[in-house]
Amino acid sequence: MSDKQKLVTAITSMDEDFAKWYTDIVKKAELIEYTSVKGCMVIRPYGYAIWENIQKILDGKFKQTGHENVCMPMFIPESLLQKEKDHVEGFAPEVAWVTHGGSEKLEERLCVRPTSETLFCEHYANIIHSHRDLPKLYNQWVNVVRWEKTTRPFLRSREFLWQEGHTIHATAQEAIEETERMLNVYADFCENELAMPVIKGKKTDSDKFAGAEMTYAIEALMHDGKALQAGTSHYFGDGFARAFDIKYSNKENQLVYPYQTSWGVTTRLIGAIIMTHGDDNGLVLPPAVAPIQAVIVPIAMHKEGVLEKAKELLQRLNKSVRVKLDDSENSPGWKFSEYEMKGVPVRIEIGPKDIENNQCVLVTRHNREKTIVSLDELESTVLKKLDEVRDGIYQKALENREKHTYTCTNTDEIIKALDENGDGFVKAMWCGEEACEDKVKELTGVGSRCMPFEQENIAQKCVCCGKPAKKLVYWGKAY
Amino acid sequence: MSDKQKLVTAITSMDEDFAKWYTDIVKKAELIEYTSVKGCMVIRPYGYAIWENIQKILDGKFKQTGHENVCMPMFIPESLLQKEKDHVEGFAPEVAWVTHGGSEKLEERLCVRPTSETLFCEHYANIIHSHRDLPKLYNQWVNVVRWEKTTRPFLRSREFLWQEGHTIHATAQEAIEETERMLNVYADFCENELAMPVIKGKKTDSDKFAGAEMTYAIEALMHDGKALQAGTSHYFGDGFARAFDIKYSNKENQLVYPYQTSWGVTTRLIGAIIMTHGDDNGLVLPPAVAPIQAVIVPIAMHKEGVLEKAKELLQRLNKSVRVKLDDSENSPGWKFSEYEMKGVPVRIEIGPKDIENNQCVLVTRHNREKTIVSLDELESTVLKKLDEVRDGIYQKALENREKHTYTCTNTDEIIKALDENGDGFVKAMWCGEEACEDKVKELTGVGSRCMPFEQENIAQKCVCCGKPAKKLVYWGKAY
Repeated sequence: MSDKQKLVTAITSMDEDFAKWYTDIVKKAELIEYTSVKGCMVIRPYGYAIWENIQKILDGKFKQTGHENVCMPMFIPESLLQKEKDHVEGFAPEVAWVTHGGSEKLEERLCVRPTSETLFCEHYANIIHSHRDLPKLYNQWVNVVRWEKTTRPFLRSREFLWQEGHTIHATAQEAIEETERMLNVYADFCENELAMPVIKGKKTDSDKFAGAEMTYAIEALMHDGKALQAGTSHYFGDGFARAFDIKYSNKENQLVYPYQTSWGVTTRLIGAIIMTHGDDNGLVLPPAVAPIQAVIVPIAMHKEGVLEKAKELLQRLNKSVRVKLDDSENSPGWKFSEYEMKGVPVRIEIGPKDIENNQCVLVTRHNREKTIVSLDELESTVLKKLDEVRDGIYQKALENREKHTYTCTNTDEIIKALDENGDGFVKAMWCGEEACEDKVKELTGVGSRCMPFEQENIAQKCVCCGKPAKKLVYWGKAY
Repeated sequence: MSDKQKLVTAITSMDEDFAKWYTDIVKKAELIEYTSVKGCMVIRPYGYAIWENIQKILDGKFKQTGHENVCMPMFIPESLLQKEKDHVEGFAPEVAWVTHGGSEKLEERLCVRPTSETLFCEHYANIIHSHRDLPKLYNQWVNVVRWEKTTRPFLRSREFLWQEGHTIHATAQEAIEETERMLNVYADFCENELAMPVIKGKKTDSDKFAGAEMTYAIEALMHDGKALQAGTSHYFGDGFARAFDIKYSNKENQLVYPYQTSWGVTTRLIGAIIMTHGDDNGLVLPPAVAPIQAVIVPIAMHKEGVLEKAKELLQRLNKSVRVKLDDSENSPGWKFSEYEMKGVPVRIEIGPKDIENNQCVLVTRHNREKTIVSLDELESTVLKKLDEVRDGIYQKALENREKHTYTCTNTDEIIKALDENGDGFVKAMWCGEEACEDKVKELTGVGSRCMPFEQENIAQKCVCCGKPAKKLVYWGKAY
């Protein structure tokens, strides 16, 4: 059995068992490794490099929109967590508690942050006094812990990495604008850089963040037809400010409450990339965040001049793309499989015949298309191919979503659509009552994902109760 | 009382009370804010931006030397922490213990990582099987927790940020070379970028890292004559590999143990910057890590053309330095004090007369020297001034260290030198016995800091017992 076969047969096909296909990829593409603590994983160099690229791009966007990075402590005293009623109800059941420091029992137990609203509020109460202190546009890149029962790498882990933006403003309007601005930053990033189409919308009340007045989200459809919440942005009104007694003197010298937001994306995005773009040969990475954008594989490496030429290409491409030359002793076939598994967007093959003809072969990962390229046009063609990969995988994902988005006017239609076409997004009208949300879920298995900003009037009546509809809702099974 | 006086009088002078001067600066330069959990602080935007600059430079150096970033979980099961005997003895007394997840008691308690050797070892045991898997040159940028009794911002906090490199090699020699290489990376960074002279040396056995065969360190002298350990690099031999059963098959197909290292620097470096370069007007930041390298202060801002010209200078300088224009309503005097407090290396003053003469005034923070500069030479002069600041503060720190380094041949001389000249480094010979180390500390108050790589033979006999000396040691009081 050749190396290539060995690698390829080692992945479960996604049609056979999507969940197994997913965990095969995270392991075999060396994104993560399990540890002895359930739900806590090692993010390996290749996985972490993807996260570093995500961080770098998003951090730039946050700074461009006026945000500053800070770092809060990771411990929250129990009494602080309890200050905002809805918030503590939402999070207390799933936090990890520190009870001892060294051999001593703590006077008050501390939770490991599941999110940091309470810490930011305590800080804001200390530093905000006047309208001149507003707004504060803060963000932090940290780890958080939520003690989940069921865990899956990247998608639902007990510890995960994220950024959490926390801003505080003089007016409600300014805070709402911020909430929307950051949702748009996330959506643009997902669409442009991750090549992942998303629906922007508002969560229904039953699905809001604990303590929020409004929660906005972006929802993406995975390859198996399940929805994944890829980012959220919350508007808090002045609820947290009241709970934490944050006040400032406005221009009229009155003490008033400011308005807050928070917003976040997590290492879950890596799971979303896998399940949006991956295939039975492994990962397919969007070029913007791929640790290696192009890999050079020398053919007949030991023939005179091949390795030298490959090194020359490496030197040339190094200036404009993240490029690797694999000059290891493994066979070209093994290397092809390896970098397909790792989702490297472009492969560059160069052998003696290519050198004779002043050319090389470019192969794009997502469609395995081969292009023979003159070495004179190498740099520009590689860049063009990277754009093609981005556009190609975006289109593919969009087509998948369109194919698996079903417009329905009653629950029977929902059941039928899912049954005939598999899981996907269901577009259907809703009366606004939580009871109908629950009933739709009970009858059909799909829950409300969001009320899209782009509303359509596909029917007059609620998909469930038949009363007048208020909103178009995207429904789906969710990760 | 003018704004300027208000600010200046608000700092305790360093001669009056060095500890108070330090905490005044960390608060008033807005580097940190306290929280309700002792020893856990908020790193504010200005403080965090210094850390980001440190990260960016060091991360580049780590990657240049072949290292890859990863991310381990933050929880260590008690049984895992206990696998290496010396290591657990060193750290167990000062860890925070998680005992509950949500409302359930954990079967085994987890400590929040004080350092991650045990986690890396567990991972290495999983992924290293063959000589082809070696070396692994890993690093991570994370938070860690040590439950200290006495805490001080940056210098000794219960939670702090750091990077920890963890590498594993086929041979002892390779691992020792790595240990030395990374100490040199730290030393070069401190000297060149932080303008902080350091002594490179080896720790005595009593002062080694828990579980290490050798600990190398860089030691810097703070303005008050106390020593600060600015970075460490440890060689573990195969001790951890044996404890965690990490084995690989070598080229001869034998199962053998690999050799390991770890090395780290922390947010403590920010404390070191403050205490090396700061003065009674506040922070003095090394240009390489200063969030703002130059600040433009318009004079008579409301006169025609001043603000426009200031904005023009901002545009021009933006390309080559981190520059800020302060066009707020505060007085120039207030701004001067504010940016002196914040340690901005270069101030640029521009007013109507300057504009008339096509010039501006540059003031360097560390010596308050004014230079009138033609606007035609603005960019090159600002860059030159930044270099001058770096060189100037390095020289100043070096002179301070030289002035406060005392060569002694017996303990009476040590006592006399410290008494007459204040705290500092003591250079004295040592026989190699721990009893003498302890006795020197007991008699004189100074402990061994390190055995410098650059050994000198300043005497034949141990400073304490008079027996033949083996090593020159730097002694000092330590942070």
